[in-house]
Amino acid sequence: MLRLARRLAPDAPMPYADGVVDVVLTADLDSTFADEVAERERAAERMSLRPLLDPVSVAIVGASRTGRGVGAEILASIVEGDFAGAVYPVHPEADTLAGVEAYPSFAQLPQPVDLVVIAVPAPHVADVLREAGAAGALAAVIVTAGFAETGDAAAQRELVRIARDHDMRLVGPNCLGVVNTARSVRLQASFALDAPEPGGLSLASQSGAVGIAALAHATRTGLGVHSFVFLGNKADVSGNDLLAYWYDDPGTKAVALYLESFGNPRKFARIARAVARRKPVLAVKGGRSEPGRRAGLSHTAAAATSDTAVDALFAQAGVIRCDTLEQLLDTARVLVDQPLPHGHRLGVVGNAGGAGVLAADAASRAGLALLDLGERARGRLACAASAANPVDLGAAADPGAFAEALDAAGTSGAVDALVAVFAATGTSDVEGTLAAIGDALDAMPGLPAAAVVMGLADPPTVLGARQVPVFAFPESAVAALGRAADYAAWRTRPLGARPDLPGIDRAGARALVDRLLEHGDGWQTAADAAAILACYDIQLTPAIRVASKGEAVAAARALGYPVAVKADDPRLIHKTGTGTIHLGLTDAHEVRIAYAEVAARVSGDESAAVVVQPMLDAGVELAAGIVHDPLFGSLVMAGLGGTATDIMDDKQFRLLPVTDADAVSMWRSLRSLPLLEGYRGSRPVDTEALTDLLVRLGRLAEDLPEIAELDLNPVMPVRYGVQAVDLKMRLARVGDEPDPVARRLR
Amino acid sequence: MLRLARRLAPDAPMPYADGVVDVVLTADLDSTFADEVAERERAAERMSLRPLLDPVSVAIVGASRTGRGVGAEILASIVEGDFAGAVYPVHPEADTLAGVEAYPSFAQLPQPVDLVVIAVPAPHVADVLREAGAAGALAAVIVTAGFAETGDAAAQRELVRIARDHDMRLVGPNCLGVVNTARSVRLQASFALDAPEPGGLSLASQSGAVGIAALAHATRTGLGVHSFVFLGNKADVSGNDLLAYWYDDPGTKAVALYLESFGNPRKFARIARAVARRKPVLAVKGGRSEPGRRAGLSHTAAAATSDTAVDALFAQAGVIRCDTLEQLLDTARVLVDQPLPHGHRLGVVGNAGGAGVLAADAASRAGLALLDLGERARGRLACAASAANPVDLGAAADPGAFAEALDAAGTSGAVDALVAVFAATGTSDVEGTLAAIGDALDAMPGLPAAAVVMGLADPPTVLGARQVPVFAFPESAVAALGRAADYAAWRTRPLGARPDLPGIDRAGARALVDRLLEHGDGWQTAADAAAILACYDIQLTPAIRVASKGEAVAAARALGYPVAVKADDPRLIHKTGTGTIHLGLTDAHEVRIAYAEVAARVSGDESAAVVVQPMLDAGVELAAGIVHDPLFGSLVMAGLGGTATDIMDDKQFRLLPVTDADAVSMWRSLRSLPLLEGYRGSRPVDTEALTDLLVRLGRLAEDLPEIAELDLNPVMPVRYGVQAVDLKMRLARVGDEPDPVARRLR
Repeated sequence: MLRLARRLAPDAPMPYADGVVDVVLTADLDSTFADEVAERERAAERMSLRPLLDPVSVAIVGASRTGRGVGAEILASIVEGDFAGAVYPVHPEADTLAGVEAYPSFAQLPQPVDLVVIAVPAPHVADVLREAGAAGALAAVIVTAGFAETGDAAAQRELVRIARDHDMRLVGPNCLGVVNTARSVRLQASFALDAPEPGGLSLASQSGAVGIAALAHATRTGLGVHSFVFLGNKADVSGNDLLAYWYDDPGTKAVALYLESFGNPRKFARIARAVARRKPVLAVKGGRSEPGRRAGLSHTAAAATSDTAVDALFAQAGVIRCDTLEQLLDTARVLVDQPLPHGHRLGVVGNAGGAGVLAADAASRAGLALLDLGERARGRLACAASAANPVDLGAAADPGAFAEALDAAGTSGAVDALVAVFAATGTSDVEGTLAAIGDALDAMPGLPAAAVVMGLADPPTVLGARQVPVFAFPESAVAALGRAADYAAWRTRPLGARPDLPGIDRAGARALVDRLLEHGDGWQTAADAAAILACYDIQLTPAIRVASKGEAVAAARALGYPVAVKADDPRLIHKTGTGTIHLGLTDAHEVRIAYAEVAARVSGDESAAVVVQPMLDAGVELAAGIVHDPLFGSLVMAGLGGTATDIMDDKQFRLLPVTDADAVSMWRSLRSLPLLEGYRGSRPVDTEALTDLLVRLGRLAEDLPEIAELDLNPVMPVRYGVQAVDLKMRLARVGDEPDPVARRLR
Repeated sequence: MLRLARRLAPDAPMPYADGVVDVVLTADLDSTFADEVAERERAAERMSLRPLLDPVSVAIVGASRTGRGVGAEILASIVEGDFAGAVYPVHPEADTLAGVEAYPSFAQLPQPVDLVVIAVPAPHVADVLREAGAAGALAAVIVTAGFAETGDAAAQRELVRIARDHDMRLVGPNCLGVVNTARSVRLQASFALDAPEPGGLSLASQSGAVGIAALAHATRTGLGVHSFVFLGNKADVSGNDLLAYWYDDPGTKAVALYLESFGNPRKFARIARAVARRKPVLAVKGGRSEPGRRAGLSHTAAAATSDTAVDALFAQAGVIRCDTLEQLLDTARVLVDQPLPHGHRLGVVGNAGGAGVLAADAASRAGLALLDLGERARGRLACAASAANPVDLGAAADPGAFAEALDAAGTSGAVDALVAVFAATGTSDVEGTLAAIGDALDAMPGLPAAAVVMGLADPPTVLGARQVPVFAFPESAVAALGRAADYAAWRTRPLGARPDLPGIDRAGARALVDRLLEHGDGWQTAADAAAILACYDIQLTPAIRVASKGEAVAAARALGYPVAVKADDPRLIHKTGTGTIHLGLTDAHEVRIAYAEVAARVSGDESAAVVVQPMLDAGVELAAGIVHDPLFGSLVMAGLGGTATDIMDDKQFRLLPVTDADAVSMWRSLRSLPLLEGYRGSRPVDTEALTDLLVRLGRLAEDLPEIAELDLNPVMPVRYGVQAVDLKMRLARVGDEPDPVARRLR
């Protein structure tokens, strides 16, 4: 069997296979994705979303004359926000609303508008949307609720149809509006209470509440916002569309998403990966837990998705996944308008020993290292209480000491990011110290930095001209820098390629699967599953099917003792639990007894049989497999195997396509990695063979989405390669794959 | 062998052994600890710390006439804080300071003072302390730095000697002062910038910076503080002393500690356990990580402690361990002045679906369940967008809807704690809704509650007369309630007893250990180690020592095939890595080959030998053992065994004494618990025998602290009980155990 061989050494550059089957299929992901997104979607998205996020004129329908209600609030917000374009309230009776001339209908507007905001009661939304479309509106934000989220999916589909008929883009329904703080736009078309300050973060939130919480926190912490879209029910405009738009948007320095569902996760993977290669993409996925998913289902009518798939999706696409909204915003604060850390080395300088301890503990949790700052820096820190890293200047440190120490640490060459910690007491020169920290960090614009200010009731939110974010606690500052460093590392890591794999009989496997599916969906016999795997040159431990004690003993002799005797019965999913497997049989007598017992268990069932296998030398037991998700496509799994697989939960999943780099990162990310590398004398695993296995499973899953589940467990190291000892496969017909374009691109 | 037998069924009440050896040794921990602390220490602590935290008069030395500097700041703080007693600045020249009459020396004060605050330069501190003591001062707070933390331990010892000579208690040196907000005291003797509001939380911080960060955050979030002690170098007054004081202090509703070291962890365990049985004790331990410990060492001269031991200490003592300061303060906010949750069922009511999703996800992480609220509550929630839990009232919910829904959820009988989530938009009745939430929760004083207010730039910190804490994010509110529920569960769980164990030959084991230690500290042979374990009736797999191939084969026949042949060489710590163990030998031929190979490896070494053992049936491999920590005493370990022990890191540690309840909780807390209960047909572990083993290891560790390390791995289930297959023991002489009282109490 040909292998990826030496080329796959984990530290070596990933091989780029030369185009054999299909140029796109075999190309390097790094170069492909950006181009793909560029050519196919970016231009179109930019064109179609411009009227939404960069409108020249806005009409609003549903603002009351009393000034109360959602529509009036949004109109007031647009007017008070000093919208750069023209705003036209549409109202059947009013002459002016919020001090602006109103018009009785769309037909009477002085010009066709880019964007219309609709806040009329649900039964009237469709009519208004139709009128707006007829009058040439290019985009609509439908604030009104009462569509798919309350069960009226038909009414929502009707809105989409109207929008399509008029070539309009649609945000919502059931949303809180859109915001763009760009100086040339100044659009505050939302009814969130706080208008955010201008800045570099663009956000999209599927939930209104989470969105306004994010906006309020951004305001409190001085985090500027570029644009903000409340997605609501995502009838048309989705996170994918906005990602594609923000890819090229120069005002957007980082993207943050709150999502509860994915309409098209495969497209998301492709676009997010391209965006994340260029600017940070942060996300909180609501509904990680079962109760959370239930809660989500009831409020946005979104389909539940497996958290495992979401984890794989985000990890492969370089999305910075945050557990909480606060983590997301903290991380955004250190990413927007700052350079990325070049590594994981952190410097901490402060006047507070205890805060240094907490920072060091947090660094350890975040995977950041606190290295010695070197002799030269230590020399400059002679007056410090401790010149080690964290540097402790002592409670009485004056502004000059802070300036000197920050410069010494920052220029030491031993740090990739810097945290300045100031604990203010009654004797501190608060103003002077804050200014000194700001100035010192301004002098090192290339170094990512955060500040921690403790002891002030009303601390500043940023320091210095470069706007270094200020945190209340060292732990949150360090954790945010840790996530920034992880993201930076992902950005420089090759995504790898989809290697050319020899020895694959795709047509043969397809024919087999089609034939098996003629009998319906279901679990397959080990023999049939093995035949499919053989088409992809996946190594299995030999198994001889036997029909009598004599045949069993003969098979055992041929294979060599010790052997295992077990049932090949697709319905017995967990064999060890059912008494139908006998391991470590050392002579003919034991084999006969075992055969009799297993045969008795499977008797009377035509699809079941008894097989004899050699026992492999003790070694680490791994597991590998495939699971198909109708929305996300198939996932490939690698993990620790044996009976403990589920309990130890040491597993890694990847979505398709599984590149060579993905496969290596899978086994490298296992907690049990030391076992693979030969631990306490156990046989080291041939990791090249393991990588090859995972890439082949990925290819198998691409070619045959009908493989609903494949479980190879245990997978054991043998002298040359790895072998799957036991296998279970379930086939299920699939409908049209949700995203044929994405499949073609893979 | 006699066993704890059926009495140890995990859900049954823990047996209280009748006093045999020693009443204290065998008593139930629940009843003992509080009594012990009460009788022996509480009264004395209360007496000796009263002058510190509840002084009638305070002198201060070191306040400058310019009003600048630490001393002057503290004097100003005392005066501005409206101290209820008399304050006397001591200054050689000034007539008044901060508007208060000053005195040239202690001798001239109008009355002897309770407390003296010393802020003079380090070289003068000892003299001032001596004078204060001579003048009858009962307590001193030494703010001045420059003692043990900068290497001058001798000067610090001198301060302690002076204090002892004059029966004074001492806080510091190197600290920021003390605060007591009680109305009858009003002592603000610190130079933190913010004076906290009165409240129920008492805090002690070993770090000044962490202390002032905590005070500032408390002020920002409306968390009231009862008393606050900056511990500094802990030369005399320690966290233990304050815990004992706060045990009886009616103004202290909860205790929070920031610690970087333990002077006497065994005493801490005893006192903290007693306090935590009565009121919540929260702690952040700085220096969890190696870099954190290094940082701590350099700023408080504290000895490094193992994080494993600290985890065990906190878990057994019921201390709520928090990772970050923010977590600690969040948790304190839901614990102070609120009832404890009676269970882990959470109700979430809000007008924001997305926030409900985040709350549900956070609940899942925190181990809180969101149950259906029942038919009656659902009926009252008919207008809600979702009447399931989380209840989603829809963005437009009015104050009446909030009131009705909170009452419906709170009285449903399906929740042990309630979170109200309000997302404010431009159309919200903000004042009305906040008032409605406060009123509704006020009407349910028995139900622990938290509120989340999103979308306001300047949200309130508390709601209602009962002061329900307001959080910015649902995740932090839910996580805090989760920790409260965990604490409440610990408080009602029996601590268990130290059971009477039959079959222990304490004297025999002691004699053996003393004899072995005559040859010095070190690893012992398996035979010697087995002899010690036999004195505690700990079951080992038989091992026959053999000296020839013939003896090996005879032993194998006697034990029954398959067998293992291995070296008994105390220097070979990890046998599987060295080729000196051969497993699963099935005949005499294999045994001869194995013997020859192992014998060759150990030849020429008198302390080494070759042993033959039977192979046990495949089953879960566990591990157990003892490790001695000079400061914390010995810890008993239970975990998943085999070669994966260290990698999977599925281990539980407990400090002495190991009660029956501790032993049960050890194996119940393992991730691999399902393996113990018989997973996929593997032999279930006799958990009574496992409990018995762990309790016996605890007793062995109590009796023989010279057991520096004991490693039983694997420990495997057999038909009746569990057996240790392999064992390693290291003995080391110990000095006087640090806390003889604590040892006696065990």
